[in-house]
Amino acid sequence: MARQGRLEDTMFLTTFLHDEAKHTEMFSRWQQAVGVGDLDLSAYHNDSYKRIFYEALPEAMERLYTDDSPEAVIRAAAVYNMIVEGVLAESGYYSFRQIYKKAGLFSGILQGIDYLNMDEGRHIQFGIYTIQRLVVGNEERFKLFHDYMDELWAHAYGVVEYLVGLAVLQREQSNVESRIVFEPDMMRQYAVKQFHIRKSKIDRARKYKNLSELEAAAGP
Amino acid sequence: MARQGRLEDTMFLTTFLHDEAKHTEMFSRWQQAVGVGDLDLSAYHNDSYKRIFYEALPEAMERLYTDDSPEAVIRAAAVYNMIVEGVLAESGYYSFRQIYKKAGLFSGILQGIDYLNMDEGRHIQFGIYTIQRLVVGNEERFKLFHDYMDELWAHAYGVVEYLVGLAVLQREQSNVESRIVFEPDMMRQYAVKQFHIRKSKIDRARKYKNLSELEAAAGP
Ligand SMILES: [Fe+2]
Ligand SMILES: [Fe+2]
Repeated sequence: MARQGRLEDTMFLTTFLHDEAKHTEMFSRWQQAVGVGDLDLSAYHNDSYKRIFYEALPEAMERLYTDDSPEAVIRAAAVYNMIVEGVLAESGYYSFRQIYKKAGLFSGILQGIDYLNMDEGRHIQFGIYTIQRLVVGNEERFKLFHDYMDELWAHAYGVVEYLVGLAVLQREQSNVESRIVFEPDMMRQYAVKQFHIRKSKIDRARKYKNLSELEAAAGP
Repeated sequence: MARQGRLEDTMFLTTFLHDEAKHTEMFSRWQQAVGVGDLDLSAYHNDSYKRIFYEALPEAMERLYTDDSPEAVIRAAAVYNMIVEGVLAESGYYSFRQIYKKAGLFSGILQGIDYLNMDEGRHIQFGIYTIQRLVVGNEERFKLFHDYMDELWAHAYGVVEYLVGLAVLQREQSNVESRIVFEPDMMRQYAVKQFHIRKSKIDRARKYKNLSELEAAAGP
């Protein structure tokens, strides 16, 4: 963005990065506080998770160091803003909220996640804006976006399915009466819904012939 | 920093970038407010300025995309934190403050610069910390740092000399009685002093044999 002289975008991205650092610190402090600071979370990283977080995400982001073509930017925003933030994180926070709000547990981190969701809303919106301005009036790039989203979806759903499955298993094997209730299907459906919302948001740019029309419609 | 797993540094750098964006916005808003929003400031960029801001700074920073060797990091921190922030920006704010505080003008932006200076203090300190931890116990890298600083100094002083000279010229050619007074030598001397302070701060790391000793002395 900086290389392309997009100063406003670059400045916005500094707030974006700073938000992410604050989220990192928030979860880290919470993990320390509840006594799971040393837990190795990589135990929860299945192959789908690895495909997205160890490969697709860093590859797409690192490519931007040397390639700021529309294709590279669309792919980076698709995996970061649409899949990781827009589907996985949103679904995770939704599930967490569903489970622990009902159980009356973890009110502090739930409040923190509410704040974090406001930040994430801006991040996802920036991703939508960035992709829309690059695909508008260009059928080839619309296709590029949707194809890549579909390719990533298999893995994204693999993450959701795996974590929901783990929770089901844990419940079945537990002998302890628990306040915690959760509905696996609701979580799966929420993720599916998020995926389709992200795709359809980008498709809204089809209403416009070109960037000036899109910007005129969005503009102040 | 991220590639090296230096999470705390990476997180700090997000606040650093966000600070710089806020400073950009502050000066931009001020320029709009006082009616010089459309002024082309590149008229003030002499060859020395261009050598630093068009060449040395972007070269050193962009190198970090692909090269995070100690040499690359030392050079980047030297030009960004020690020369641009530590000498040029500090001297500029000092002069601005000297001139306009005495004249009782621009109290708003002077207050803004005071806030900005607190941010810059953190930035420069991060640069000192970063260079110190890389040069400690390594005479070759101390030399690398000082040689590069000396090389940049010619151009940095060229910027100061040019701007002070412009101000002198403007005063000589003006027929208007002005509240504005300034002392060219004080500004030159301030820049020289800043340069030597930055170099001597790094030399403080000579007191320690290695990184652990340095960190033990700095540590919490
Ligand atoms: Fe985010
Ligand atoms: Fe700075």
